[in-house]
Amino acid sequence: MSGAKFKTAVLGATGYAGFELTRLMLRHAKLARPVLLARESGSHGALEDFYPQLTGEHLPMEPFSLELLKSRGVEMLFLATPHELSRELVPQVLEQGIRIIDLSGAWRLKCAANRAVYGFVDPDASVAAKLDAEAVYGLPELHREQIKSARLVANPGCYATSIIVALAPLARAGVIDSAHGVVVDAKSGVSGAGKKPTQKTHFVEVAENLSAYSVFGHRHTGEILEQTGLRAEDVIFTPHLLPIPRGILSTIYLRLKQRSTFADVEKIFREFYAGAAWVRVFAAGSLPQIQHSVNTNFCDVGFALAEDGKRLILVSCLDNLLKGAAGQALQNLNVMQGWNEREGLN
Amino acid sequence: MSGAKFKTAVLGATGYAGFELTRLMLRHAKLARPVLLARESGSHGALEDFYPQLTGEHLPMEPFSLELLKSRGVEMLFLATPHELSRELVPQVLEQGIRIIDLSGAWRLKCAANRAVYGFVDPDASVAAKLDAEAVYGLPELHREQIKSARLVANPGCYATSIIVALAPLARAGVIDSAHGVVVDAKSGVSGAGKKPTQKTHFVEVAENLSAYSVFGHRHTGEILEQTGLRAEDVIFTPHLLPIPRGILSTIYLRLKQRSTFADVEKIFREFYAGAAWVRVFAAGSLPQIQHSVNTNFCDVGFALAEDGKRLILVSCLDNLLKGAAGQALQNLNVMQGWNEREGLN
Amino acid sequence: MSGAKFKTAVLGATGYAGFELTRLMLRHAKLARPVLLARESGSHGALEDFYPQLTGEHLPMEPFSLELLKSRGVEMLFLATPHELSRELVPQVLEQGIRIIDLSGAWRLKCAANRAVYGFVDPDASVAAKLDAEAVYGLPELHREQIKSARLVANPGCYATSIIVALAPLARAGVIDSAHGVVVDAKSGVSGAGKKPTQKTHFVEVAENLSAYSVFGHRHTGEILEQTGLRAEDVIFTPHLLPIPRGILSTIYLRLKQRSTFADVEKIFREFYAGAAWVRVFAAGSLPQIQHSVNTNFCDVGFALAEDGKRLILVSCLDNLLKGAAGQALQNLNVMQGWNEREGLN
Amino acid sequence: MSGAKFKTAVLGATGYAGFELTRLMLRHAKLARPVLLARESGSHGALEDFYPQLTGEHLPMEPFSLELLKSRGVEMLFLATPHELSRELVPQVLEQGIRIIDLSGAWRLKCAANRAVYGFVDPDASVAAKLDAEAVYGLPELHREQIKSARLVANPGCYATSIIVALAPLARAGVIDSAHGVVVDAKSGVSGAGKKPTQKTHFVEVAENLSAYSVFGHRHTGEILEQTGLRAEDVIFTPHLLPIPRGILSTIYLRLKQRSTFADVEKIFREFYAGAAWVRVFAAGSLPQIQHSVNTNFCDVGFALAEDGKRLILVSCLDNLLKGAAGQALQNLNVMQGWNEREGLN
Repeated sequence: MSGAKFKTAVLGATGYAGFELTRLMLRHAKLARPVLLARESGSHGALEDFYPQLTGEHLPMEPFSLELLKSRGVEMLFLATPHELSRELVPQVLEQGIRIIDLSGAWRLKCAANRAVYGFVDPDASVAAKLDAEAVYGLPELHREQIKSARLVANPGCYATSIIVALAPLARAGVIDSAHGVVVDAKSGVSGAGKKPTQKTHFVEVAENLSAYSVFGHRHTGEILEQTGLRAEDVIFTPHLLPIPRGILSTIYLRLKQRSTFADVEKIFREFYAGAAWVRVFAAGSLPQIQHSVNTNFCDVGFALAEDGKRLILVSCLDNLLKGAAGQALQNLNVMQGWNEREGLN
Repeated sequence: MSGAKFKTAVLGATGYAGFELTRLMLRHAKLARPVLLARESGSHGALEDFYPQLTGEHLPMEPFSLELLKSRGVEMLFLATPHELSRELVPQVLEQGIRIIDLSGAWRLKCAANRAVYGFVDPDASVAAKLDAEAVYGLPELHREQIKSARLVANPGCYATSIIVALAPLARAGVIDSAHGVVVDAKSGVSGAGKKPTQKTHFVEVAENLSAYSVFGHRHTGEILEQTGLRAEDVIFTPHLLPIPRGILSTIYLRLKQRSTFADVEKIFREFYAGAAWVRVFAAGSLPQIQHSVNTNFCDVGFALAEDGKRLILVSCLDNLLKGAAGQALQNLNVMQGWNEREGLN
Repeated sequence: MSGAKFKTAVLGATGYAGFELTRLMLRHAKLARPVLLARESGSHGALEDFYPQLTGEHLPMEPFSLELLKSRGVEMLFLATPHELSRELVPQVLEQGIRIIDLSGAWRLKCAANRAVYGFVDPDASVAAKLDAEAVYGLPELHREQIKSARLVANPGCYATSIIVALAPLARAGVIDSAHGVVVDAKSGVSGAGKKPTQKTHFVEVAENLSAYSVFGHRHTGEILEQTGLRAEDVIFTPHLLPIPRGILSTIYLRLKQRSTFADVEKIFREFYAGAAWVRVFAAGSLPQIQHSVNTNFCDVGFALAEDGKRLILVSCLDNLLKGAAGQALQNLNVMQGWNEREGLN
Repeated sequence: MSGAKFKTAVLGATGYAGFELTRLMLRHAKLARPVLLARESGSHGALEDFYPQLTGEHLPMEPFSLELLKSRGVEMLFLATPHELSRELVPQVLEQGIRIIDLSGAWRLKCAANRAVYGFVDPDASVAAKLDAEAVYGLPELHREQIKSARLVANPGCYATSIIVALAPLARAGVIDSAHGVVVDAKSGVSGAGKKPTQKTHFVEVAENLSAYSVFGHRHTGEILEQTGLRAEDVIFTPHLLPIPRGILSTIYLRLKQRSTFADVEKIFREFYAGAAWVRVFAAGSLPQIQHSVNTNFCDVGFALAEDGKRLILVSCLDNLLKGAAGQALQNLNVMQGWNEREGLN
């Protein structure tokens, strides 16, 4: 552990994902304490004022500026900011030679039609277009090589991660009878909805409840389609709000082209994720539950095959703030820096 | 409110459904206080000892016997007992001229192949076969006329109720493209698993968790198939255990044969449930949530149609102990006695 | 049930207590459907738009005015409004000859020093002073006779109800060694904090958590002191926020003046609450839990006495939206109208 | 990180505390993978079969024997076993020259009268008496020096830790007016009740509920008295069961002998815990909440003083499985081995 520690900054540490990221970074052996940045001039103070969990730490937040990033020698900026702000800041920051891992949805989508749901208004459309093309989708299990050298990593959505990890091995193996339809019924804890209080996140509205939302229209759909190659008309994705703080479970229903055995399917997964630090494939007869991966960076995947050898149910779980956000961001940093992917995440 | 009150008995009041039923019956204006019966000779005592919610009531339980039923003039027996016990007792009780509403799964299934999952061993197979044929599936919205004159009403399963209420109108209208598959992703609170403590119902195992279970093998599947007429190979039903005490939400995915409008589908539901006291069809743009029907006898149904006019998502909610068990049992009693279906359930 | 039904109105039905009250009133056999009133001109619409639980009902809200109250023949107005608004409206409404049950804290306190925590600015101080003197504290178990003829009933606070019901019998019997101190450690579900979303009521902040708040400064303290006659310096009241939607449990610690037996203490309670419809005294060896009274109008009280015969622990539970708010309001209406106190509350 | 790793064993890894301990030990840089032991010959298998959270690990359990401990070179044994078993095994294991950290209540109490609540029947009373005298109460903040050289460390109870950490500084400073009484109202998550399913830990009984239990009789009382020096007649300790999986909050009410300022009290705490790795004293105006310390090894303490300068409320929080059990056990190991107390606990 000789030599200087790596210098990073976080913009947006007061949100749930930004806080989780900061907390992880404080324990990462190769990182200097991150520079914490706030956008609005009035809301600085210190992170421990927002999160008494950090009592005993001193984590002052400073106003964001390019000058500050440079004067502190920041080499990597994490953005845990609204999508629009990320569209605005990324071009400027990259120009300073600073690499970026962006936790927002701003740079995840390659296809303009998919991006349309966000309604971005870019200051310079041609710059934005180049960066849309350049940005690397930050799912290391799919794009490890590109991430290593990326300037801009678009950290995936939480639902999208859980679903793509489950579907990608089968999609790439070409075994899904996609015309028959792929149904994704996903359920998430409330921290995925962010820290801002709304009627929807009021305790009394969520507790003892379950509700479906964004039916036929959730913004993570584009990521799922682009990363699996499935067509929009073949995929239905329905998120539900669970009365728990964190964790996602996605139940995925599809039909295989060929009659297969459990071992056939298992082989596809085991080979795809051989050596993967943060994906666990469950054995026959057991399925992941939210509790198994909460407070870890794992995405767990299990499955069950009907007697007909065709109808397949996939179950995928993760912690939406870790593998679904901050943990994956740190995993991406590890990949970009050539460190062990487990570093700082155990 | 002239005349004598109707005389009933409950066997199995200490379980969650039996307790809920008893509590409802105490407030039903047309009913005498139910005779409470226990099967095991050792566990009598009083119901308020098991449920301090009933402090101030006096609800002694007595050992079950046919003589007792007769001597008390019981006209209707509710069974909230294990399936096997219900198979054993029903023939004897009916012979005494006492009608039965059975909350177990014993008499719900017409098809022997579906019944096989329960593995019943009947004392007299020919009597059992006759009663299997005679028993009426106690979903009043589907079988009101038969229930009126039934001697034996098989009260539906909780999951089954939520799913059949959503699917039956479309199935009977013949609009489901069933070959394309019907996916039922259902989520239930823990009281559905019964009062007996097990590792699966330990608070620490359920809280902050979600898990799929009985994948490709839940016993309510037979009810769903028989009541909707769908084929086993076309339906996938996956239950999940929610970290809440009560409530079920079923999300159902299917494809319509013909391109349709929202209004087309809504019309089918509104006509099917015109005048129904305990089914509510939600308007366009709103979907039921578990909170809306918990502590009521309603089954709520809503839906959303994809832009293609074919892919349909149904959401159905109910309280598993009310419309999913005890409330429906009382609704069936109301039907059998020719009373208002809302009586005692508001 | 001959004759016209009694005419009421509710101002503030969109809050949790107002909604609960409205829902109860719809089932009260002696009441016409309440006139629902909203204060702000922009937010009318219908109650079912705010609470899909009411799907199938039609409950339009109309702008509040004295004219409307008169033209509809309203005989009793329920206020489920902010304290300040209640201070403003009550004098005007009473002048129209309409009686009022006020669920806010506006008129509960007789002592100006206690009222000071609310910081009321009254339009007419002398009118306010007269009404402060006239208002009856709406705990029927203590003030039944005065409530019968009251024009203005101040419905008690939720914490205050649970604590006063437990302490009043002992305080009035003069058996508390108050100089030794009375410690009240109370815990409440989140609906007590109201429907407006705040950081404090965000699901993620409350779930899996417990916190003390308003230490040495909760506004219900004044009610407790005035109704029990205890001195401020002898009582400590600490509320805590529980991760549940509804329910209060208060644990109260005190010392008796004289060495006593359990039976001595029980006698005081049983005599005090003899015939009370909505207070249940638990037997030796059992203590109330929140689950026992949630969704009922009961306040449950139990206690345990140390071997020294002096140190006494009281446990008191209720549903903060029922006996702690809307249920008690309806109980007060029943008293005011000379109806059975259980009417509409079973 | 040169040299061989330290060799340990855990008996009782399948319980909640034992599992948590094992999980922590796998990440402790100075420890070899622990030898996992099971008592009953039939229940071996592997820990990951009991906790799918450990999918991907291989943690076989072996039958406990002294021979096995010796043959594996175990230097420290952790007991996460029933109290009685710990009484039986400890003398035998110590004789082998193996040190012990015992998570049960077996060896915590010095006073025979306090120990009586456990009803131990020791095989050799004189050996047991010597060990009762020798055992060190494993709260490092109070007994660090003795722990360093102890052969047998009795890891404190979860409630006891939270309460003693809050009371000890004041008790040792002699500022408590104990004759006036000390009231401890404590609330714990369900994992404190153990993994065995019972009616009391059934999800439906705990969820949406709060209950007091073991009133005037909880077994941790003896630890509190012995470690603070307070007298039994001056302390009331009432535990409550919270509807959350983990975490304890204790609210403690006492009176100071002398009129004091907040700063006076704060000074006592800050000096007492100067340099403590795992106790955090909260600043004026803020109080610990359960969320702040869950999933950490911290015990957080805060307080509020009444205007009279005498009545003091202490609030203390910790994670019952970490600082309240497994985390503290590992902290004790760190102390015993002369390692940094934070090692393996961040």
